[in-house]
Amino acid sequence: MTDHAATSVSEPRTGVWFIGARGSVATTAVAGCAAVAAGLEPPTGLLTQAPEFAAAELPALSSLVFGGHDLDGSPLFKRAEELAEQGVLPHRLPAAVAGELAAADARIRPGGPLPGDPRGDEELIEAFRADLADFVRTERLARAVVVNVASTEPVPDPDAPRLPASSLYAAAALRAGCGYLNFTPSAGLHHPALRADAERSGLPHAGRDGKTGQTLLRAALAPMFRQRALDVRAWSGANLLGGGDGAALADPAAAAAKNTGKARVLRENLGTVPQGQVRIDDVPALGDWKTAWDHIAFDGFLGTRMVLQTIWQGCDSALAAPLVLDLARLVARAHQAGISGPLPQLGFYFKDPDGGPAALAEQYAALLDFAAALGAAR
Amino acid sequence: MTDHAATSVSEPRTGVWFIGARGSVATTAVAGCAAVAAGLEPPTGLLTQAPEFAAAELPALSSLVFGGHDLDGSPLFKRAEELAEQGVLPHRLPAAVAGELAAADARIRPGGPLPGDPRGDEELIEAFRADLADFVRTERLARAVVVNVASTEPVPDPDAPRLPASSLYAAAALRAGCGYLNFTPSAGLHHPALRADAERSGLPHAGRDGKTGQTLLRAALAPMFRQRALDVRAWSGANLLGGGDGAALADPAAAAAKNTGKARVLRENLGTVPQGQVRIDDVPALGDWKTAWDHIAFDGFLGTRMVLQTIWQGCDSALAAPLVLDLARLVARAHQAGISGPLPQLGFYFKDPDGGPAALAEQYAALLDFAAALGAAR
Amino acid sequence: MTDHAATSVSEPRTGVWFIGARGSVATTAVAGCAAVAAGLEPPTGLLTQAPEFAAAELPALSSLVFGGHDLDGSPLFKRAEELAEQGVLPHRLPAAVAGELAAADARIRPGGPLPGDPRGDEELIEAFRADLADFVRTERLARAVVVNVASTEPVPDPDAPRLPASSLYAAAALRAGCGYLNFTPSAGLHHPALRADAERSGLPHAGRDGKTGQTLLRAALAPMFRQRALDVRAWSGANLLGGGDGAALADPAAAAAKNTGKARVLRENLGTVPQGQVRIDDVPALGDWKTAWDHIAFDGFLGTRMVLQTIWQGCDSALAAPLVLDLARLVARAHQAGISGPLPQLGFYFKDPDGGPAALAEQYAALLDFAAALGAAR
Amino acid sequence: MTDHAATSVSEPRTGVWFIGARGSVATTAVAGCAAVAAGLEPPTGLLTQAPEFAAAELPALSSLVFGGHDLDGSPLFKRAEELAEQGVLPHRLPAAVAGELAAADARIRPGGPLPGDPRGDEELIEAFRADLADFVRTERLARAVVVNVASTEPVPDPDAPRLPASSLYAAAALRAGCGYLNFTPSAGLHHPALRADAERSGLPHAGRDGKTGQTLLRAALAPMFRQRALDVRAWSGANLLGGGDGAALADPAAAAAKNTGKARVLRENLGTVPQGQVRIDDVPALGDWKTAWDHIAFDGFLGTRMVLQTIWQGCDSALAAPLVLDLARLVARAHQAGISGPLPQLGFYFKDPDGGPAALAEQYAALLDFAAALGAAR
Ligand SMILES: NC(=O)c1ccc[n+]([C@@H]2O[C@H](COP(=O)([O-])OP(=O)(O)OC[C@H]3O[C@@H](n4cnc5c(N)ncnc54)[C@H](O)[C@@H]3O)[C@@H](O)[C@H]2O)c1
Ligand SMILES: NC(=O)c1ccc[n+]([C@@H]2O[C@H](COP(=O)([O-])OP(=O)(O)OC[C@H]3O[C@@H](n4cnc5c(N)ncnc54)[C@H](O)[C@@H]3O)[C@@H](O)[C@H]2O)c1
Ligand SMILES: NC(=O)c1ccc[n+]([C@@H]2O[C@H](COP(=O)([O-])OP(=O)(O)OC[C@H]3O[C@@H](n4cnc5c(N)ncnc54)[C@H](O)[C@@H]3O)[C@@H](O)[C@H]2O)c1
Ligand SMILES: NC(=O)c1ccc[n+]([C@@H]2O[C@H](COP(=O)([O-])OP(=O)(O)OC[C@H]3O[C@@H](n4cnc5c(N)ncnc54)[C@H](O)[C@@H]3O)[C@@H](O)[C@H]2O)c1
Ligand code: NA
Ligand code: NA
Repeated sequence: MTDHAATSVSEPRTGVWFIGARGSVATTAVAGCAAVAAGLEPPTGLLTQAPEFAAAELPALSSLVFGGHDLDGSPLFKRAEELAEQGVLPHRLPAAVAGELAAADARIRPGGPLPGDPRGDEELIEAFRADLADFVRTERLARAVVVNVASTEPVPDPDAPRLPASSLYAAAALRAGCGYLNFTPSAGLHHPALRADAERSGLPHAGRDGKTGQTLLRAALAPMFRQRALDVRAWSGANLLGGGDGAALADPAAAAAKNTGKARVLRENLGTVPQGQVRIDDVPALGDWKTAWDHIAFDGFLGTRMVLQTIWQGCDSALAAPLVLDLARLVARAHQAGISGPLPQLGFYFKDPDGGPAALAEQYAALLDFAAALGAAR
Repeated sequence: MTDHAATSVSEPRTGVWFIGARGSVATTAVAGCAAVAAGLEPPTGLLTQAPEFAAAELPALSSLVFGGHDLDGSPLFKRAEELAEQGVLPHRLPAAVAGELAAADARIRPGGPLPGDPRGDEELIEAFRADLADFVRTERLARAVVVNVASTEPVPDPDAPRLPASSLYAAAALRAGCGYLNFTPSAGLHHPALRADAERSGLPHAGRDGKTGQTLLRAALAPMFRQRALDVRAWSGANLLGGGDGAALADPAAAAAKNTGKARVLRENLGTVPQGQVRIDDVPALGDWKTAWDHIAFDGFLGTRMVLQTIWQGCDSALAAPLVLDLARLVARAHQAGISGPLPQLGFYFKDPDGGPAALAEQYAALLDFAAALGAAR
Repeated sequence: MTDHAATSVSEPRTGVWFIGARGSVATTAVAGCAAVAAGLEPPTGLLTQAPEFAAAELPALSSLVFGGHDLDGSPLFKRAEELAEQGVLPHRLPAAVAGELAAADARIRPGGPLPGDPRGDEELIEAFRADLADFVRTERLARAVVVNVASTEPVPDPDAPRLPASSLYAAAALRAGCGYLNFTPSAGLHHPALRADAERSGLPHAGRDGKTGQTLLRAALAPMFRQRALDVRAWSGANLLGGGDGAALADPAAAAAKNTGKARVLRENLGTVPQGQVRIDDVPALGDWKTAWDHIAFDGFLGTRMVLQTIWQGCDSALAAPLVLDLARLVARAHQAGISGPLPQLGFYFKDPDGGPAALAEQYAALLDFAAALGAAR
Repeated sequence: MTDHAATSVSEPRTGVWFIGARGSVATTAVAGCAAVAAGLEPPTGLLTQAPEFAAAELPALSSLVFGGHDLDGSPLFKRAEELAEQGVLPHRLPAAVAGELAAADARIRPGGPLPGDPRGDEELIEAFRADLADFVRTERLARAVVVNVASTEPVPDPDAPRLPASSLYAAAALRAGCGYLNFTPSAGLHHPALRADAERSGLPHAGRDGKTGQTLLRAALAPMFRQRALDVRAWSGANLLGGGDGAALADPAAAAAKNTGKARVLRENLGTVPQGQVRIDDVPALGDWKTAWDHIAFDGFLGTRMVLQTIWQGCDSALAAPLVLDLARLVARAHQAGISGPLPQLGFYFKDPDGGPAALAEQYAALLDFAAALGAAR
């Protein structure tokens, strides 16, 4: 499989630059984009392939060019085979899209800071910027979007002298004139030190933390309780997952970063903060398969005690990858249309969005409005 | 506790006439209305007490006057004590609202047809109409709403020579000039034989089948799958409940009536009909506490198999009663405002509504619009 | 992969003749036996490979020779590939054991009665017996065990003039001098018409209906309630499964056969029959993956209402196949040791055993005793 | 209700002295003992009322006399009413057993050390001993058993100069010549400083930590996995509970004490320690109703991935109280029979017993053997 018929010779090419390019989400996105573009798999989970987005003039899947940074060096094809072994990818897929995996692999540059890295912040930003500029030039891209799908960082210490890595990459994106997406709860462009640059840049950006499982469900369910005037007393959650993300979130500081977004969705949708905590446990045996149990204790008429429990058993990377592709296409198109600044219209995709409504249904409506606006833009 | 200060001397009184007036839902509604009106209990579950409905000029809870038909003769106070024993009502409530229970009890008339009842359809309709007229006159009511909360009937045989009981009551409501609500899946006003009368009547009506548990949840969750382009392969459900409703639904024909509405919500929200069935089992030990388990098998990106399961443990009568009060107030106000015919704007409350959107969020928006329209009406 | 080194030249060969030899359970057993014998997979689930059975002198896995009857003609290798596609078998396994699958495939004979089959009962029994005799002779087997893993039959009408197919095969097993195992709830050797022959035969036999999921769990859990003097009010269950077994059990008559065993385990372990039903729904999308939900409502001290729920998500064929292998080895060894008649000592494996204790722990103890007795036998 | 007919004038009276006598477990035990002794409630959950214990000559429920220590001063009747409000006790029970509650209340002495308590360890032990001696003398008791049902303490620092409170009470029990029961995970008699005294005392004792919910279930289920040669990869658990115990266990150090016993049951029953953690969250809205979710990831034949999940919704005090009564009767009888030292035969009741088998079924068998031995004793 090489070129995809649907991409006309003249269609401009759009770059998607992953921070964490050898991770599960990035690998699934690269392999899955190739598979769907080639018609090997249906576009399940890819909202932007739905008729509602037909008029938005998003870049075609076949026009996306992947590259990125990672600290790790293991080949993308090997990562894809591991994911197939776990059932994340269909087991024949890695072979079927080996060409696309190899092409993306060749465009992955070493990230940073590496352990013991002597480079200062400015030096790192500059190196990342140069990699991005090189990517755009070499691949003759109309534009590129930087997408953070690297391991979740701990909440940064406000007094730390150095920027967290995610913010170094975000600063590089601004300098290179790229749209920016933060699919993780890490600081990225939200670091106070980058605020002014972000505002000046005239670039579109969106974040934080992809909404793929428990929080997605909470955003769909919490409005029901408020609409029905039911009194949620406690909302507790337990998450079990292995894989890279499970290991990263076993660190309480990283888990804390994650839980901020999870709490927000309840507070904003219920109007109050119910009792209850969210736990994240690393269970390597589960690999990329996350189980999330939610227990919601609520009172009904005359104080009657009731309970709703939900159990979500999903494949995290398969949930995240199509959202990443959706977002990259939407931000690239926004960039082309001259839209800049934070995009609260993309709150549908995020746990902790830059404003906009908190209920899933309203976020979806806002997204469709945004798609219509893109269609109407030049 | 007798009169409630909030009801001004001059506020018109609104009748609420229950078919099935000694059942769990009706008893909970009567007791609960009194408790909330008197400030003994918070208005949890009563949407129409929320600020969003303040301007709609709905009749005050304290202005509602309850009566009804039932085949059964056991005193309302005794039914309330049984419900308190099961934990449906707070155990001190029956004593606290004994006066209101006794008053409603005194206004309950024998329904029909009784086993071996010699009366024909016309005779029964006329008797029920006379009871309604008597209620309105004796209680000096501005208007009354007839609310069907009787046991679910089997799906009627289209060739049956006689009308089902629910339709006899519905015909009587039309003749007596009352708004009509069908909180059950029974035929009621939807019987073909009543269509013309309903249209001519100039009366508002709404139905069918209150959406209180599993279907409520489905209406909140199914849109999420469509919005995320996830492919629902199978949606299966099991319901366990005892109480009167559990016993009635142990009859497969009555269960079939119930399941029509349950299937509709999936079809309309997903755009397809997934595999899977809904089972209803009578488990007397559970009383009014319903447990509903749902198992949703769906495919994500690249065909990955995922599962969501939900377990709903709710008290059926406590879920239904506030909806019944909401609906009675809304239909009475619509009647006053001269609105007639089916009210698809109330689809938020029903499993099988007369049109309108199928997603819970859109149904809620439609309800708020309706409240605004009522506020604007004379 | 052809012959397995562990089988010494002189070890006698034991035949395992599957009724339903092209079904999921049989295919998994054949492929899995080869994989474990060759050391490609660990013996997970195969109790008879555990140290507790080392002294019982069971026939080695590598000495088992598979054949059988089926109505269907699709090659065993193709069935194995389908199972691998569903994740029941590791996806490289069919290729790795292609030789063993082909060898077994070549020994599968057409069963009966086929639709419109003109042959009478006697003729069919004789044909099946001849196939068995041929198998034993051609393959130079020390003995053979007939194992019913065909589709579950409806409960037979006691007045039916003809024997059900499962009983025809059982009669043939007796005539051919083979031990007999009924892993299904079908009548098999339990048909009254076969009683005298079974007694006279001097052959060991065991059944009915493999205990692999919900009933296994019930046999482990129900004793806890009795031991703790907790009062189980209702035990309800829902089963969702696709695959061949799901389709067969969508027939209420076949489901009824299945549910007899499921009820028995509660009655015998609790000493009473609680409220509640067991439902089996065919959900083709789930394939061989069964989900069983159990809801147990029980009363504790002073009548406090409590609930235990269990959700079992298992692969039916992967649960059944090792039990089938265990049982075939145990029955073959019992035959060799001259043990005849029903084997209540194997109740650990069955939903509806021929006597013995009902609690899983006691059944396990009885099994270990049986293993010790086999070790002590000549 | 005063005296109970079943207690003959001459039956010796047995004292039950609760440490934590105003807690939920103690209050439920006192109220429940009275209710069952008077025939107001059936003996559900009280194993020692079952026929299997008839010959063990245990002290009659009606012969038990309750007293104890607590730091708190709120009347037992008020505690019982609060428990009734939460549904732990039937709501008419506190009034029905008000006499027994008042009698026990009058026998509760202030415990220690209170905040800022100037007394040293020896002084406290001596004060507690004196209270016990006084109890035995004043009430003319044949003997008394001290039962620790106080709040769980943090795991004691081995270098701490002072004994934890639970050990002070245990030392007092020894000095007063009382049998001792530790229903909590606190140190109690297991403190190294008490070892020699315990051995010399000639008194029977048992502990630690009552097995009432998640661990009970694990002791019933874990053996199933081993017996079936299934490979448990991960066993994760989440516990939600409010009430006094929930608040105490919100302290990670107290939770750690609890989790030791929970881990032990898996290790001993599975033979390995699977991945997975146990979490305990304080959710005040749930009161005494505990929800425990367990997620068990296991591999079957050929490495197939399977999952069992359990959800236990129980009332903690109602589960604990009958065990406490059972244990007090058994230890008092052992004391009478001259049995001394740790009682591994009571492992059925404990998360972290003093030896004996780990599987629930074997623990039950050991308990029945012990009952038989008591029957045979003088
Ligand atoms: N999968 C989901 O459902 C989901 C949802 C929301 C957010 N996320 C977030 O997406 C991120 C990726 O998840 P994943 O499952 O792919 O994790 P992963 O562990 O598989 O991949 C993370 C990758 O980031 C790389 N990395 C780490 N630090 C880096 C650095 N400084 N520079 C460059 N690369 C670096 C790692 O080497 C690794 O290859 C996580 O932060 C996760 O929280 C995932
Ligand atoms: N509770 C819920 O969550 C819920 C939700 C949707 C619909 N519903 C429907 O509401 C209805 C009432 O439920 P319930 O739990 O109160 O049931 P219930 O059995 O407690 O009460 C039904 C009452 O109807 C009476 N009745 C039966 N036939 C009658 C007739 N011909 N004329 C007059 N009265 C008659 C019965 O005597 C009984 O008192 C049911 O149809 C149920 O399906 C309830
Ligand atoms: N898998 C489990 O956990 C489990 C547990 C207990 C019992 N069982 C029983 O095992 C049996 C097999 O289950 P499965 O999943 O392999 O089913 P399946 O549908 O995959 O296979 C059944 C096979 O039997 C064949 N068959 C049907 N009628 C026949 C006849 N008259 N003669 C010869 N062959 C015939 C079919 O052609 C098919 O190949 C079922 O009866 C099932 O109830 C399975
Ligand atoms: N309920 C169960 O299922 C269960 C199971 C196993 C163990 N336990 C243990 O039983 C204990 C009691 O549980 P509960 O729910 O009754 O708790 P609770 O909080 O209701 O009662 C504990 C009582 O102990 C008292 N107390 C605390 N420190 C004391 C001291 N130094 N001296 C005397 N009294 C003191 C408190 O004042 C309180 O009245 C806990 O340790 C719990 O972990 C309970
Ligand atoms: Na797959
Ligand atoms: Na109670």
